[in-house]
Amino acid sequence: MQKLVLLRHGESIWNKENRFTGWTDVDLSEAGIEQAHKAGQLLKAHGYSFDAGYTSVLKRAIKTLDIVLEELDELWIPVQKSWRLNERFYGALQGLNKAETAAKYGADLVQKWRRDPHELPPAVTKKDDRYPGKDARYKHLTERELPLTENLKETMERVLPFWNEFIVPAIRKNQKVIVCAHGNSLRALVQYIDHLTDEEVTKLDIPTGTPLIYELDEGLERIRHYYLE
Amino acid sequence: MQKLVLLRHGESIWNKENRFTGWTDVDLSEAGIEQAHKAGQLLKAHGYSFDAGYTSVLKRAIKTLDIVLEELDELWIPVQKSWRLNERFYGALQGLNKAETAAKYGADLVQKWRRDPHELPPAVTKKDDRYPGKDARYKHLTERELPLTENLKETMERVLPFWNEFIVPAIRKNQKVIVCAHGNSLRALVQYIDHLTDEEVTKLDIPTGTPLIYELDEGLERIRHYYLE
Repeated sequence: MQKLVLLRHGESIWNKENRFTGWTDVDLSEAGIEQAHKAGQLLKAHGYSFDAGYTSVLKRAIKTLDIVLEELDELWIPVQKSWRLNERFYGALQGLNKAETAAKYGADLVQKWRRDPHELPPAVTKKDDRYPGKDARYKHLTERELPLTENLKETMERVLPFWNEFIVPAIRKNQKVIVCAHGNSLRALVQYIDHLTDEEVTKLDIPTGTPLIYELDEGLERIRHYYLE
Repeated sequence: MQKLVLLRHGESIWNKENRFTGWTDVDLSEAGIEQAHKAGQLLKAHGYSFDAGYTSVLKRAIKTLDIVLEELDELWIPVQKSWRLNERFYGALQGLNKAETAAKYGADLVQKWRRDPHELPPAVTKKDDRYPGKDARYKHLTERELPLTENLKETMERVLPFWNEFIVPAIRKNQKVIVCAHGNSLRALVQYIDHLTDEEVTKLDIPTGTPLIYELDEGLERIRHYYLE
């Protein structure tokens, strides 16, 4: 039996302000920092220890993982950061307040953008400051990989290659792995591991800063999963 | 012209207490944290930016680099951690107060241990808690690689393969590199880059938390170097 730990970053400043964040590199709130410390202390109290960490290129996830590893006294483990573990790219909604957006476009449409795996939010243009092609951290991506908007399906499609190329081989080498990422990139992993339908996954909400433990068999099929609280 | 930035970690708790530290995983002091922030702010004010970071598996260096990258808003760059960038392994001197050790063994002998590149401090045994074979972070090292004690020469010999295998190729790919390490592992790099004799390198003292800038030509020979202060 192998354990895998999934962790959504602690509360960010925009979680708190109820704004669409996506790839915007928003920092943790004070409460988010506190959640990260608690998650680390909880993992430590339960005897968890890691050989490898994986996270996105967004600071709310990177810092959450750093805080957890510091609590575990395991800052020295290798940590790989990838854009593929980023939050869903929310297009032209990024930065907007969720309630205001619902008032403007109607709650139904906003709910669809948020939950329907095939629904695309309004796109940014390549001239928009929010276009990832303007950010140094994405300079190695192909134009095709740089999103203008993303539906949940597309988020999942770019997360899975990272899972298969890096995380699965690490688990197969018996490494104890922690993945610290985002609501939607973690949903992608959960859908894949748990064989969820699109409808099941859209109902899934992964809370911030709460370690989600997967016990996996040799075929990396789930034996059971639970939150550490 | 390529720039390379070398940075010794900020002051650690044992720097402050004047104890031999070596591979002991001692944390930064408050002053050390402050130095790291200042180093990051200084690099930012001078327009520095990095594509890749390298550090040891010791938290005083890892955290210094993290703080610097946070100041630069570049937490997302890849950071590779290696035991080869660790401080010199100080054998059975690790944990001892430097003044007390001088009183016990004589200042001359202690000075020799500290400065003569061929002089070996007293070794630890494999039963000693300080033996790195007992620490999970070194479990992939061969027995031959696990030190019982180290002279400066040996420190240099294990640093250079990392320089050649990882840092040189990154610089050759035009990556802007920062190496955050320790007094003696950085000395090793400086001796190599600057073609210093053993005598010259033993006189060299690299201050904590102060970015040391190298300007290198295409053959990675030094054009000039200076501290950012």
